[in-house]
Amino acid sequence: MKATKRFLLTEREIPTQYYNVLHDLKIMPLLNPATKQPMTPKDLEPIFAEGLCKQEFATEQFIDIPDEVRDLYKIYRPTPLVHATGLEKALDTPAKIFFKNESVSPVGSHKLNSALAQAYYNKKQGVKSLTTETGAGQWGSAIALAAKHFGLNMEVYMVRVSYDQKPYRKCVMQTYGATVHSSPSNTTEAGRKFLAADPDTPGTLGMAISEAIERAVSQPETKYTLGSVLNFVMLHQTVVGQEAEKQMEMAGEKPDIVIGCFGGGSNFGGLMLPFLRHQLAGECNYDFIAAESTGCPKLTQGTFRYDFGDSAGMTPLIPMYTLGNDYVPAPIHAGGLRYHGAGAIMSQLLKDKVMRAVDIDQHECFDVGTLFARTEGIIPAPESTHAIAVAVREALKCKEEGKSKTILFNLSGHGLLDLQAYSDYFEGKI
Amino acid sequence: MKATKRFLLTEREIPTQYYNVLHDLKIMPLLNPATKQPMTPKDLEPIFAEGLCKQEFATEQFIDIPDEVRDLYKIYRPTPLVHATGLEKALDTPAKIFFKNESVSPVGSHKLNSALAQAYYNKKQGVKSLTTETGAGQWGSAIALAAKHFGLNMEVYMVRVSYDQKPYRKCVMQTYGATVHSSPSNTTEAGRKFLAADPDTPGTLGMAISEAIERAVSQPETKYTLGSVLNFVMLHQTVVGQEAEKQMEMAGEKPDIVIGCFGGGSNFGGLMLPFLRHQLAGECNYDFIAAESTGCPKLTQGTFRYDFGDSAGMTPLIPMYTLGNDYVPAPIHAGGLRYHGAGAIMSQLLKDKVMRAVDIDQHECFDVGTLFARTEGIIPAPESTHAIAVAVREALKCKEEGKSKTILFNLSGHGLLDLQAYSDYFEGKI
Repeated sequence: MKATKRFLLTEREIPTQYYNVLHDLKIMPLLNPATKQPMTPKDLEPIFAEGLCKQEFATEQFIDIPDEVRDLYKIYRPTPLVHATGLEKALDTPAKIFFKNESVSPVGSHKLNSALAQAYYNKKQGVKSLTTETGAGQWGSAIALAAKHFGLNMEVYMVRVSYDQKPYRKCVMQTYGATVHSSPSNTTEAGRKFLAADPDTPGTLGMAISEAIERAVSQPETKYTLGSVLNFVMLHQTVVGQEAEKQMEMAGEKPDIVIGCFGGGSNFGGLMLPFLRHQLAGECNYDFIAAESTGCPKLTQGTFRYDFGDSAGMTPLIPMYTLGNDYVPAPIHAGGLRYHGAGAIMSQLLKDKVMRAVDIDQHECFDVGTLFARTEGIIPAPESTHAIAVAVREALKCKEEGKSKTILFNLSGHGLLDLQAYSDYFEGKI
Repeated sequence: MKATKRFLLTEREIPTQYYNVLHDLKIMPLLNPATKQPMTPKDLEPIFAEGLCKQEFATEQFIDIPDEVRDLYKIYRPTPLVHATGLEKALDTPAKIFFKNESVSPVGSHKLNSALAQAYYNKKQGVKSLTTETGAGQWGSAIALAAKHFGLNMEVYMVRVSYDQKPYRKCVMQTYGATVHSSPSNTTEAGRKFLAADPDTPGTLGMAISEAIERAVSQPETKYTLGSVLNFVMLHQTVVGQEAEKQMEMAGEKPDIVIGCFGGGSNFGGLMLPFLRHQLAGECNYDFIAAESTGCPKLTQGTFRYDFGDSAGMTPLIPMYTLGNDYVPAPIHAGGLRYHGAGAIMSQLLKDKVMRAVDIDQHECFDVGTLFARTEGIIPAPESTHAIAVAVREALKCKEEGKSKTILFNLSGHGLLDLQAYSDYFEGKI
């Protein structure tokens, strides 16, 4: 075991600005579905808070983090960078493995990084209530806590399969004061339509987004919030990668490979974009790998085209890798990866071959998730096990080839509220 | 909100020694139940690893932490000291409230501090298998992970009421590779006796201890481990208070009141004993408050006398505040507080009026637990809510009296595996 296990920054080293990749990367515009014309911030304002609409289209390289948001980051940030010595030893690999531990946030994942910013901009504008969707419940828990901090009401549409698989996630959101609906629900027109089409549908993130948007636009002083996909979410998540860069320097290492699991792109984007900045500036090169689920393989099997972000077609058209907005993914335990598309920034990077993607079967995920728990102590979220699986594959490749590479992945969350999944795995049901 | 929220130490500042209060405090000896003579380390060796038996009777003021154990502490230590500014604001109190956040350990509580040491000393001696009991499952999870780290087999007897209330705790222990029995069980003579006496018994920690000890002494190369009560457990837990002392200095504050919840005494002892050292040296004075459950009030309602640590009478006789070793506590959700007695050190301190005790009803606990979650983000373990309740009472007293005191409590664990309890609370079942 190495002398130093965790690389910790001080409160003062929490980033003061978000890194905006749109300064350095050209992407195709969001389109208004009615006119097929590029969207403007104004077009988004019926749905999102003004501050967020502005950020969605911003091109400054760095955007100040509001003091109120940065103060709240101090509850859990900076998060540790961990040298996974236990995992390295178990794999007997010459590779060096590091992970950014976002599971230490009080809600158990990186999602709070954007939730606090989104709640702040809504509060600032005088919004009284928020709606959102959630898959596994990581985002729902985060925005519920953030809404409570800013005194906002919160209504969450939770994808039915996760609602049923993860009863305690609902309880977390309630503890933070939110109201939670199983989606599709009878509380919206979109929901009723989805249920009429298939009363037994497991639900999808796309359906839940439709319901949450409908709810927001049909209620006074209410806005919608979103945990991934959009540019402003990637922007907020760059606190992860900015910290990780400093911490890799502390460790005296430069990552060769940077890995994150992939639902809409927020945790992987958050980690990789600050590293990418230097690559785009021609300073260095990284092997960026997105780890998606075989149960929802938009990056490896989807096509790049304009598509809706939700099932009912209420969002702008997004230039993205997609399986189609009516795609119903398998009811895998990694609910956060059950999204038909990929955010525009991340899609562009895949199209440009700046990053690559690998799809992983959930059995392999729980194998490595259990190994990780036993060697590093932390039970990983089913989503995060996809990143671990790719890290393990790469580390074993190093062993085969007798090469030492430095691998960095994002441990986006812990799995303490996903134990039914582990339980099913131990009982041979996966 | 104050400028600094969390006070963080570096890895180098993890204590290198445990503080042994037995250098500064005289307590009555453990007695051999057969001879009624004081026990010696040798007498304990059939049950515990030699290194631990030695520590139980040691009188040096400081005892080195083995390098292997300190290296493993680096997975989660030093833990943060947090200024509970959100809670202060919600209470509108002039008091300053700080908590030591032991919930950040990968198993979710302070229990890992002693688990790693106990597994180490067993491994060192060539022991192959460990047994233990667990209430809420915090200790069981910790020793399961520690055993896995040192390559030891692990068998856990989990008190039936908690086994049923907290199905996912069992899954955590299994993820770490342990075998878990609902106690009382049919796997031991003691368990069969308890079941014969009352087939519907909710179980107690005392019964589970009897089963785990019987199992250990009846199997080859197997030893028993214990999560609280004994001197060596308090010793290991002093890493908590030693760190907290440094961190309170960083904050520029001296606590007037030091609070911990109380089952057998390990988290409260861990926090308070290093502070007590200075009080015993005449340097300062603290108001030490143990927060126990009205469902198991040994400190406020028990008597100080020699009693067994378990139900079947297999342990040494311990000089303790006790409700009697056959006492069956109410099936409260704070399973970790359902123990009939208090450790010898902590009992002596109560007898000497060096500390005081308060008993708290679980409804008040879930009220403040929810308030704490909403203001500080962390959902506290039901056990820890007892400490929060006393901190809140003291902070409100400060408000009434217009006084500003500095309050420090131990957040011994998070409640992410106790959400059924919160769910029951929200549904009005508590």
